[in-house]
Amino acid sequence: MRPTPTLDVVGIGNALVDVLAHDDDAFLAAHGMTKGTMALVDAATAERIYAAMGPAVEASGGSAANTMAGVAGLGGRVAFIGRVRDDQLGALYAHDLRAAGVHFEIPPAPDGAPTGRCLIVVTPDAQRTMNTYLGASVELDADDVDEELVAAAQVTYLEGYLWDADGARDAFRRAAQVAHAHGRRVALTLSDPFVVERHRDTFLELIDGEVDLLFANEQEIRSLYEVEDFDAALQRVRHHCEVAALTRSEKGSVIVAGDEVHVVDAAPVPGGRVVDTTGAGDLYAAGFLFGWCRGDDLGRCGRLGALAAAEVIGQLGARPETSLRRLLAPPDGR
Amino acid sequence: MRPTPTLDVVGIGNALVDVLAHDDDAFLAAHGMTKGTMALVDAATAERIYAAMGPAVEASGGSAANTMAGVAGLGGRVAFIGRVRDDQLGALYAHDLRAAGVHFEIPPAPDGAPTGRCLIVVTPDAQRTMNTYLGASVELDADDVDEELVAAAQVTYLEGYLWDADGARDAFRRAAQVAHAHGRRVALTLSDPFVVERHRDTFLELIDGEVDLLFANEQEIRSLYEVEDFDAALQRVRHHCEVAALTRSEKGSVIVAGDEVHVVDAAPVPGGRVVDTTGAGDLYAAGFLFGWCRGDDLGRCGRLGALAAAEVIGQLGARPETSLRRLLAPPDGR
Repeated sequence: MRPTPTLDVVGIGNALVDVLAHDDDAFLAAHGMTKGTMALVDAATAERIYAAMGPAVEASGGSAANTMAGVAGLGGRVAFIGRVRDDQLGALYAHDLRAAGVHFEIPPAPDGAPTGRCLIVVTPDAQRTMNTYLGASVELDADDVDEELVAAAQVTYLEGYLWDADGARDAFRRAAQVAHAHGRRVALTLSDPFVVERHRDTFLELIDGEVDLLFANEQEIRSLYEVEDFDAALQRVRHHCEVAALTRSEKGSVIVAGDEVHVVDAAPVPGGRVVDTTGAGDLYAAGFLFGWCRGDDLGRCGRLGALAAAEVIGQLGARPETSLRRLLAPPDGR
Repeated sequence: MRPTPTLDVVGIGNALVDVLAHDDDAFLAAHGMTKGTMALVDAATAERIYAAMGPAVEASGGSAANTMAGVAGLGGRVAFIGRVRDDQLGALYAHDLRAAGVHFEIPPAPDGAPTGRCLIVVTPDAQRTMNTYLGASVELDADDVDEELVAAAQVTYLEGYLWDADGARDAFRRAAQVAHAHGRRVALTLSDPFVVERHRDTFLELIDGEVDLLFANEQEIRSLYEVEDFDAALQRVRHHCEVAALTRSEKGSVIVAGDEVHVVDAAPVPGGRVVDTTGAGDLYAAGFLFGWCRGDDLGRCGRLGALAAAEVIGQLGARPETSLRRLLAPPDGR
C-alpha cells in the first residue's frame, strides 16, 4: 500500500517578484506589448521597460507559487519548488511564501543572475500585461526536484511557463515521472497563449501522456487546438486528459472529465469592481485544487476556484490580501 | 530681487521602503507595539519582526517622500533629499520617486547599511503601526543638502522623524538656514507622538524660531504642548508659527494662522471604506502644500489636503495608485 500523501499539492514554477504599475493602452503600444499576455525579456529590456514604467508596488508572484499560496490560504498543505538568488528580492520572496504557509526550502543561489521579476502593467480595463525577466529562475533544474516532496503530494502542479527554459523543462519531466511512479496526479496550467504557441506540439504530447488535470483559459485552449471556437476546443480536450478546467473570465468556467461536464458561473467580485486581473487564473487553480484534494465533486471544485479568483481580481496583485478561509463558509465549507 | 522659485517644495526625509502586511491587535501586543505609532528598531529586531509578519507587499515610502510624490501627482514641481544604498530596494526607491515626477539625484551609498525599510502592520480597523529600520537613511547629513535646490524651492519640507538621527538633524538645520537666507519658507511635520515626546523641547524651539508652516495631527500637537484637549493645543500653537495645519482623522482638520482659523471637514473616502491609514498625514500635507504654493487661500489648501488624504486611505500603501490630478477638477481646479 502506498503511504498517505502528507501534502496536498507541490507546485513547480518560476520564482518571480511582481512589479506592478498602472498605465494605459498607449504605453503597451509604445513598447510593443500584447495586452493580457506574458513576454520574456532579457535584463537590458527589463531595465528599459522598468525605467519607462510609473511608480510601482512589489509583491511576490510567479504563477504556480501564487497558486500554492492560495491553496495554503484555504487551509491546504503545500510546497513550492523554484529558484531565487540570495539578494533582497529573493529574501522577500522566500519570506512571503513561508509566511503564507508554503513549504519552501530550496536554498537561494549564491551567485548568478538576480532574483527574477515580472513587470506588470495594469491598464484601466483591469487587464494585466506582463514582461518577465526570469533571472535566477532559469537556474531551476531537475536536481531541484525534491522527490520526497513530489512523492508525498496528491498533486504535482506545473506551470506552462516552465517550458521556456531548458533546466525547468527537465525539472518538469522529472517531477511528472516521480509523481506517477508514486501513483500521484500531475496537473498543468497552460499559462499563456504565446507559451502555447511556442510549445504546442510538446504540450499536446504532455497532455496525452502525462497530465491528469489541465488548467487553461479560453485563449490558451483555443490556441492549443488551433480552433476559433471555445466549444470546439472543449470537444477536443475532453478525450485527452482526465480533468480539464477551462476558465473564461466573466463567462465563468467549464470543467470537463470524460462525459461529465460542469458549467460554473463566475463569482461576484468583492467590492463590485475588477481592479486587476493579475493572478485570476492562479487563484482559480488554487480553489479548484484545494477542493479536488479534499474530495469535492468537480462542480464544487469549480465554484471554489471561481470564488478564489473573484477575491484576487478585486485588488491589486496576485495574492489575496485577505483571508481565503472565509470562502469556505457553507455552502462551500464542510 | 530674489529669483523666482523654480520648485514648489523640496522635501528632506528618511528614504524607506514600506513593507506592508495585515495582522491583528494580538500581533501588536505580542510584539509590544503601540498602535498608530512609529518605533525605531535595529537590524536584528527588524529581522525578527519581519519573520513573524505575514505575506507582505513592498512600496516606496518615507513620510516627506510620500508628500513630495503627492505634490508631484497634483502637478507640483518637487525634489527630495534622502539616502538609499546601491541595492535592489534602493533602486526600486529611486525609480518610484523619479517615476512619480520627483527630482531625486542623491547618489546611492556604495557601502554601509542597506536601504532602510519600514515594517507596517495594518490592523482590521485600518490603522497602521510602524517599525522602522533606518538603514542607509541614517547616513543623511548636512552635506546632502543641495543648497541650490533649497534656494530654488518656495517651501523646504522637513519631517520630524529626521530628529532621531544626528546627521539628519544637521541636514535639517542647514536646510532651514539656507531656505530662510533665500527668503523661502520652512515647513515641518511633527510625524509621530513618540518623536514629539523624545524631542519636545527642540521642537518647541524650532517652531518658535524656524518653522513657518507646521503640520501635526491631534495626538502630536497635544503631546507637544502636554495638554489633554485639542482646543488647548490649538490656542497654544497659533502664536508660535505663521500657519499650523492640524489633522484630526475623521474629524477633519483645523488650519490656524494668527487670527484666521478654518475648520475643514474630512473628505469622503473613494469606495466608501478606509482600508489603510498609512500616508494619510503625508498626503494631507501634499494637498495643502500644493494649494499653498499656487496661492490658494488656507481653507482651500485644507480642503485639498483632505481630498488627497481621503484618496490614500481608500487603498493599501502610502502613495495613491491613481492619478491625483482629477482632485483638481472644479471647484478646486484653476
